[in-house]
Amino acid sequence: MAWKDPDIEGVRALLAAGAPQPGQPEPTMAQRRAAIDGFGEMVPLADGVSLAPETLAGISTERHTPQGAVDGRRLLYLHGGAYVIGSPRSHRPLASQLAVAARSVAVVPDYRLGPENRFPAAVEDAVAVYAELLKETDAGRIVVAGDSAGGGLSLALALALKQRGLAQPAGYYVISPWADLTQSSETYRTKAATDPMIQRDNVARSAADYLGSADARDPLASPVFGDFRDVAPVLIQVGSEETLLGDSLKVADVAGQACVQVRLEIWPEMIHVFQAFFFQCAAARRAIADAGAWMEARFTS
Amino acid sequence: MAWKDPDIEGVRALLAAGAPQPGQPEPTMAQRRAAIDGFGEMVPLADGVSLAPETLAGISTERHTPQGAVDGRRLLYLHGGAYVIGSPRSHRPLASQLAVAARSVAVVPDYRLGPENRFPAAVEDAVAVYAELLKETDAGRIVVAGDSAGGGLSLALALALKQRGLAQPAGYYVISPWADLTQSSETYRTKAATDPMIQRDNVARSAADYLGSADARDPLASPVFGDFRDVAPVLIQVGSEETLLGDSLKVADVAGQACVQVRLEIWPEMIHVFQAFFFQCAAARRAIADAGAWMEARFTS
Repeated sequence: MAWKDPDIEGVRALLAAGAPQPGQPEPTMAQRRAAIDGFGEMVPLADGVSLAPETLAGISTERHTPQGAVDGRRLLYLHGGAYVIGSPRSHRPLASQLAVAARSVAVVPDYRLGPENRFPAAVEDAVAVYAELLKETDAGRIVVAGDSAGGGLSLALALALKQRGLAQPAGYYVISPWADLTQSSETYRTKAATDPMIQRDNVARSAADYLGSADARDPLASPVFGDFRDVAPVLIQVGSEETLLGDSLKVADVAGQACVQVRLEIWPEMIHVFQAFFFQCAAARRAIADAGAWMEARFTS
Repeated sequence: MAWKDPDIEGVRALLAAGAPQPGQPEPTMAQRRAAIDGFGEMVPLADGVSLAPETLAGISTERHTPQGAVDGRRLLYLHGGAYVIGSPRSHRPLASQLAVAARSVAVVPDYRLGPENRFPAAVEDAVAVYAELLKETDAGRIVVAGDSAGGGLSLALALALKQRGLAQPAGYYVISPWADLTQSSETYRTKAATDPMIQRDNVARSAADYLGSADARDPLASPVFGDFRDVAPVLIQVGSEETLLGDSLKVADVAGQACVQVRLEIWPEMIHVFQAFFFQCAAARRAIADAGAWMEARFTS
């Protein structure tokens, strides 16, 4: 493929450099966790953001406070990593950029991961942290965001909040959400050749690690099977070259049919969670700016 | 249904008042055309817009020139009406609002309609007018827009321009596009009860009037069956309560998979071409403003 975007080849080269070489043994889970955490330390925090650890509802979190954050705003950011890797550390650079874009404190919980802690542990942790944030501010001043598994978890949280009678936040901003753990999207096939990160076999393994014996069709695991009526507005950003593009289309379908305000942005030539490559990709910076404007419009103050 | 939007009941009441009463005979095609044209004269043009008739490539058009239009910009607006009714007259109010929102001259052709002039007459007229506009300005300063059948026709034009080697415009803004003349969307079923305008049987009849013996799966009739590679960016706006919601989801799917920049906005509780009710519906005005900002960002100058 020849790409028109001037930056995407560089992003692909960076990914290829970090990928296991042919003949190398598969990395262990500990190695995969160390690698993704290391990615978070390659890139500095956004200018003017201060970072502090804290514990919310018994869960370790990191709090990003940008200069000029609007009082009372909270961005609850749920990191990606297929429910088995990733942490507040791995997603520090992206979370700090989003905090600046939304002019909001961002809170990034270290929610429990599989296989040590299976579904619905991650959902329970997300609900617990959200409930803590409701003690700090109003629901209308909270936006929930996340990438990949964290995007799916954001939408699972949307459904869990309904079940528990908790107020919806101002909105959900989901980046390349993994929202169907049955892996039914046709884009696993049509985009297999152009997606450098996500293939059906890998995610199926992660889904098994996360789910254990739980049903992948449980809406809190795969929100595309859920009832989105009365869920707050949703912004979805996804790359056109992702195997997970179909998950985003399904979220738009299911949420839109349920009378939810939906904006789906498909970014040409972009790949899974391309926003994380903001430091070398102008489209990523534009996507973050777009999302920032959307979040600013959602916050009630 | 109880709606949350404060204005949508009023829009529905207006539509109900204009609908044929039970027991009345079905309106003739001439009556339907007169009725939709009359709608266009119930509402004044946007402030500061002057209107002039002109002929482009032998086709009658209306030109809307807003005060403060940016030099060289052209909005080619393709009106809706199921390829059998509608005209520049019926869509004057909406076209004038969009011209203001885009700070652009808008050109609205009276393209040929079925059953008198069958497919692909409408597509040929759209191509002919677009080619004329290319003599007035650069492709990067043209946005193509349309509603319902005009949205489908905009996307058919996108594919026809590729076939003929004509430059793509800056973008396509399609409102509730009718883009699948096989009527395959599941939302014909799931939204039948809440859509006050479009039901599968009516549009199937219009499709037959337009297509004659042509194949509904021809991409110039049903662009969802086409190849969107290298098509300019697309903004789709659609209401959540439309039977045609599925057509918009399919356009997003097909165009996005083909590496086109896509933004799909699903507006909760809104109905088919709700933007046309800007005079009594705040969500319609917000949608037009959103689209205006999108078009402004697309124009190269």
